[in-house]
Amino acid sequence: MKSDFDKKQLTKKTSDTPRWYTEVIQLAELADYGPARGTMVIRPYGYAIWETIQEEFDKLIEALGVENAYFPLLIPMQLLQKEKEHVRGFAPELAVVTHGGGKKLKEPLAVRPTSETIMYEMYSKWISSWRDLPLKINQWNNVVRWEKRTYFFLRTLEFLWQEGHTAHESYDEAEQMTKDALSSYEKLYKEIFAMPGLCGVKSQAEKFAGADHTYAIEFLMPDGKVLQGATSHHLGDNFSKVFNIKFQDKNGEIKNVFQTSWGLSTRSIGGMILMHGDDNGLVIPPKLSPIKVIIIPILGKKDENILKYCEKLKQEIERINSEYSGKVKIDKEPGKSIGWKINEAEIKGIPVRVLVGIREVDEKTATLNSRLIGIGDLLCRQKEIGEKVEGFLNKIQDEMYKRAVKFLKGNIIEVKNYEDFKSIMKSKRGFIKAFWCENADCETNIKEETKATTRLKPLNAKKEYGKCIYCGKKAQYVWYFGQAY
Amino acid sequence: MKSDFDKKQLTKKTSDTPRWYTEVIQLAELADYGPARGTMVIRPYGYAIWETIQEEFDKLIEALGVENAYFPLLIPMQLLQKEKEHVRGFAPELAVVTHGGGKKLKEPLAVRPTSETIMYEMYSKWISSWRDLPLKINQWNNVVRWEKRTYFFLRTLEFLWQEGHTAHESYDEAEQMTKDALSSYEKLYKEIFAMPGLCGVKSQAEKFAGADHTYAIEFLMPDGKVLQGATSHHLGDNFSKVFNIKFQDKNGEIKNVFQTSWGLSTRSIGGMILMHGDDNGLVIPPKLSPIKVIIIPILGKKDENILKYCEKLKQEIERINSEYSGKVKIDKEPGKSIGWKINEAEIKGIPVRVLVGIREVDEKTATLNSRLIGIGDLLCRQKEIGEKVEGFLNKIQDEMYKRAVKFLKGNIIEVKNYEDFKSIMKSKRGFIKAFWCENADCETNIKEETKATTRLKPLNAKKEYGKCIYCGKKAQYVWYFGQAY
Repeated sequence: MKSDFDKKQLTKKTSDTPRWYTEVIQLAELADYGPARGTMVIRPYGYAIWETIQEEFDKLIEALGVENAYFPLLIPMQLLQKEKEHVRGFAPELAVVTHGGGKKLKEPLAVRPTSETIMYEMYSKWISSWRDLPLKINQWNNVVRWEKRTYFFLRTLEFLWQEGHTAHESYDEAEQMTKDALSSYEKLYKEIFAMPGLCGVKSQAEKFAGADHTYAIEFLMPDGKVLQGATSHHLGDNFSKVFNIKFQDKNGEIKNVFQTSWGLSTRSIGGMILMHGDDNGLVIPPKLSPIKVIIIPILGKKDENILKYCEKLKQEIERINSEYSGKVKIDKEPGKSIGWKINEAEIKGIPVRVLVGIREVDEKTATLNSRLIGIGDLLCRQKEIGEKVEGFLNKIQDEMYKRAVKFLKGNIIEVKNYEDFKSIMKSKRGFIKAFWCENADCETNIKEETKATTRLKPLNAKKEYGKCIYCGKKAQYVWYFGQAY
Repeated sequence: MKSDFDKKQLTKKTSDTPRWYTEVIQLAELADYGPARGTMVIRPYGYAIWETIQEEFDKLIEALGVENAYFPLLIPMQLLQKEKEHVRGFAPELAVVTHGGGKKLKEPLAVRPTSETIMYEMYSKWISSWRDLPLKINQWNNVVRWEKRTYFFLRTLEFLWQEGHTAHESYDEAEQMTKDALSSYEKLYKEIFAMPGLCGVKSQAEKFAGADHTYAIEFLMPDGKVLQGATSHHLGDNFSKVFNIKFQDKNGEIKNVFQTSWGLSTRSIGGMILMHGDDNGLVIPPKLSPIKVIIIPILGKKDENILKYCEKLKQEIERINSEYSGKVKIDKEPGKSIGWKINEAEIKGIPVRVLVGIREVDEKTATLNSRLIGIGDLLCRQKEIGEKVEGFLNKIQDEMYKRAVKFLKGNIIEVKNYEDFKSIMKSKRGFIKAFWCENADCETNIKEETKATTRLKPLNAKKEYGKCIYCGKKAQYVWYFGQAY
């Protein structure tokens, strides 16, 4: 059954965000529930967004000298167990294959939850000299983590992601790579998703299992909760010691490599939906939108002329910018009312809508409207449609980013005492800035009492001297806290 | 350890093809063995080939109105068991997840061997009216089949592929789709892989488990064995009956949909390696080659000038054709001899090689050579390098296809009696054309006695009247036989 695009059906985002979220995803045909518990089907409209993310991110990492490859899904358990912190982090979430080809396996195989162990087993085979370094490999694949509570895009048993894994001669070179990966995520989110994030380092408790330290980009959602958008880990030589990844340096000395890993998943789509959507449905930033322009013919008499004219408009729009090619659609489907089609376009978050009736054909014009910015119904001449649409798309993209920046800035709250901290986390939430002594006990207690966790210490944070928001002891840095998705 | 590009190491293809095959794949860094038995790592050089295949095939199916999506990896066993023939075909090859999140699962989950069952469970939910048809979805994903004997690319426990799955109002529309998919494979193989194949229908014994009938494209390899390159299945209403995929037609009647599925895997890369490679290494068709041109600077004095000139040549070649962008490489690596670099380029099958020394810089020239066609060392002027290279790349692509056609034509053997059939299958092998009565017993006996199976009955085969090559009884069609990879 195709979705029923009746706006009244859609719960208002402003009244019940979680319900709006699951409804809009299904109504817009982004995704559906899979047959096994906690799994998700990404439908063509959702998958096209993921393809754009892949294309854009590939450009960014290619510029960093990273190449794509593919490593096996199934990991022998003994490999996963090599790095102790790593296995401790992932063991509770594993899906395990115990039978293959009708027989019980001698050694069970884990379905990859992430690929450090299987990749580094290969790296130890491939790396022997400084000439083999740096080694920079990325994979786009599927991973499985046995989550108890699942949620479309944000937390699913299986998800799609990219995982980059590099090996370097020195700690500092690996540190630079870790930060370059983080910058690529920041750029991708800013320019494509229209999402401003905060970048920083995670606390020891929140870092990746097996990392030296972890950087992340975090986003404030309209409901005041925080979503981790991507992470970049400096692995130090933790893995290279246990996987025996050694190289001979230029002076003939044998050394361990330093490594990084970094990932971005389909979760990013969930963030985009939450960040930008409104009571009428999705609002997809033009750069990410699988359909940039929807042309809706008002059919009646002289249908052929109208459709022919729509085709002409489509060509003119696609001609103005190669990025638009194939992303201008004409909604020809018979038997649906104009109102229905407009609702469908709104729920799907299509940035620009073009209405074409017999008047527009006769006058060689088109009636434009935008999903987001208030231009009303704007009549434009056929000749200028390409430029007008391009202008709107750029303006919408900018506008969406600016709105998000304004929201973020308005919801970073500097807090001086724990009572305020607690009351904010009970009401509007947001990013709280507060001194923290970096003692894990304070972190745990704050989490238990307010549901807020340390999200990050900003990049280039300045050393200051203050008092820990929880225990009142000496603290050197201001940290950001928030309730995580 | 990076590969040691010493040509003497590489077994000659003409003396021991299987050994050459596994050696060249590792030397050229296309792939490596994965840690779990039967698995394979696809290294960046091999994965770049797969990315080109994806890009080119996506263009072909987009033109057929097919959209990409993603369905879950894990399939509840009860879904897999719904279509009886289907489960009988795949049950012996399943990998089964019995534990998740530290607990034994109530119902085990199969790692997908193919996605008919999980996709059609969703199709039954999405399809209710003729307006929802045709539904045409493709996925690029990984599947696992528990193979006993594995072989790089050709047969691995896990492999990458695309699987297209469509649903239609009528049997005939599905038949057209099945053939359109087959034609897309034929075109892809012809134009990109430079591989001519034979297209036809499989016998009942060789068809896909659960299909009404299966089409395939089959390739003759230089060793006389036959490789199935892709398959396209008309599923009839077999699956739609058990998965209850019904729609209301224009007259208000409730009917079952007719379905197709079709797939192409990383196996195609194995076919390309076997088909085109030679004693010196891989020969990759230019359209598929991750590196179209390798520029090798002869370093010594004035290295900076030489490298600057190489960059200029690279830009001029990339400028002539946007397809070449990023696919012209300069081999700057220090400490390797020119001989080594030339061997490396040969083993990797890079179509065009450009040598640049101080003479070339001074005279504003370049010395071109080709991996395949005998042009020797050709001096060309800097200004013409783009056009020259483009000319060579096109010529190599054509030449590779022509050679392959010549080989195929020369090894299709019409056979009138079973003694000849047997002796050919014991010696040079090839495609044997012979009458077959279409009785499964004859097919089984031929397979046991000669290792040859029915490969296909050509598309548009004419009804003739002959005698079955095995039993001598009346036969209506000539079939192609061969020893399968």
